[in-house]
Amino acid sequence: MIVIGEKINATRSAVRDIIEQRRDGELAALAREQAEAGATYIDVNVGTGRGTRDDEIEAMQWAVTTLCTATDKPLCIDSADAAVLEAGLAAMAGRPAMINSIKADPHCFDAVLPLVARYQAPVVALAMDEQGIPKTVEGRIAACRRIAAACADYQISIEQVFFDPLVLPVSTDAVQGKVTLDTVAAIRQAFPGAHATMGLSNISYGLPGRAALNAAFLHMAVFAGLDSAIMDPSNTTMMAAVRSAEALMGKDRHFRRYTRALRKPS
Amino acid sequence: MIVIGEKINATRSAVRDIIEQRRDGELAALAREQAEAGATYIDVNVGTGRGTRDDEIEAMQWAVTTLCTATDKPLCIDSADAAVLEAGLAAMAGRPAMINSIKADPHCFDAVLPLVARYQAPVVALAMDEQGIPKTVEGRIAACRRIAAACADYQISIEQVFFDPLVLPVSTDAVQGKVTLDTVAAIRQAFPGAHATMGLSNISYGLPGRAALNAAFLHMAVFAGLDSAIMDPSNTTMMAAVRSAEALMGKDRHFRRYTRALRKPS
Repeated sequence: MIVIGEKINATRSAVRDIIEQRRDGELAALAREQAEAGATYIDVNVGTGRGTRDDEIEAMQWAVTTLCTATDKPLCIDSADAAVLEAGLAAMAGRPAMINSIKADPHCFDAVLPLVARYQAPVVALAMDEQGIPKTVEGRIAACRRIAAACADYQISIEQVFFDPLVLPVSTDAVQGKVTLDTVAAIRQAFPGAHATMGLSNISYGLPGRAALNAAFLHMAVFAGLDSAIMDPSNTTMMAAVRSAEALMGKDRHFRRYTRALRKPS
Repeated sequence: MIVIGEKINATRSAVRDIIEQRRDGELAALAREQAEAGATYIDVNVGTGRGTRDDEIEAMQWAVTTLCTATDKPLCIDSADAAVLEAGLAAMAGRPAMINSIKADPHCFDAVLPLVARYQAPVVALAMDEQGIPKTVEGRIAACRRIAAACADYQISIEQVFFDPLVLPVSTDAVQGKVTLDTVAAIRQAFPGAHATMGLSNISYGLPGRAALNAAFLHMAVFAGLDSAIMDPSNTTMMAAVRSAEALMGKDRHFRRYTRALRKPS
């Protein structure tokens, strides 16, 4: 499993403070903690929603520069604004990075796909369009097909694309768990070379016992074809779920990662 | 989920003693405990492997009679010997029961399918044949097709059939988890009216952390289409896994069973 560590996100108030106050050491610690816990990529989202675009560009440059000295892991540059993405990618100074994210929207294609092509970066592609998140599997796959076609126009390989089927809470619409999982399976069938990733925790919004529910959803999603997750790798329940799922799918030679994860305190 | 409570099985030495010594109260307690924990059926296997066929017939008659006064739940009469099955079914005195099990073998068809037809009983059908358990999905589905054809010959409805894809440990063959899950999905596709059930715990044989691994496998299997499990309903980890899976699949209206299971001590 390709784990995208989600902790450096300015929508979390503690992280927003770290970013606004440019506290290098604490930002670096967040990256190292996730790298040690098993993250493949470290996501970086500096959108506090309180400053100007220039503020966000400057914050991204600072964060990327700081993180590149703190960890060898590739970063996942995360913004809805192409200018912020571009600033982050440039600050990587040639090191590999992922882009998070695109959706099925011509404005987004025009702004972001040139960056994906130029940096040959893996890219998270949300299964949604200008109207929002389709409620059905067919609607989400239609969005993915538009994205795949646009990527082909820019000669971006489908192997670079991490489709995200998107997760809506089952507490508000009980069929949404199955819709997301069926979308994962449909993505893997329609685009065999592509990846499938998602942020899982939204599934359990509004329900008790969220950690176990998120872990159960991860197990199901891995069988459906998920090969990546946007998650907190320091959460031992979730990382144990990743390792169990790999072991059961025959993706963990000699059960090494599984048995190592069991030895960690939970 | 249709839960078949597996605890009354003479291969467990404590249960064998209860059966051999005809300890009515303890047998009844094993049934009540499973019924209260959420079992839909109570499995009854009295095969100690130490007596004659007549001993086993007599033990089955005693067990069924005892259990029919202890619980209102239907029993699942479990034996490899058709004469024992018949004795158990007769002792039900008209109450509904399940039959466990048949496999793709003409001798088995001749001996057991007349009972399935006569008692209009649900029946567990193992995805194996005279040669044993096929290693591939195709082999297991071929066995299921032979069983379905034989059931049709006896005018047994496919809705009565609980196909069991069978579970081999991933520790000895890493692909067997995926083979079993893909078989579940193939069963639901080939026989839309049929059920799919299985005993899960074999999957984790030889590995540490078995309870969590079994729960993860259950989550995957429910997404694949499993609608029944042969398990210990008193195992709170496994029953919590059943309730989480139902909740995520939109099969638990208002999340009632899920939230009730959360309130139980684990």
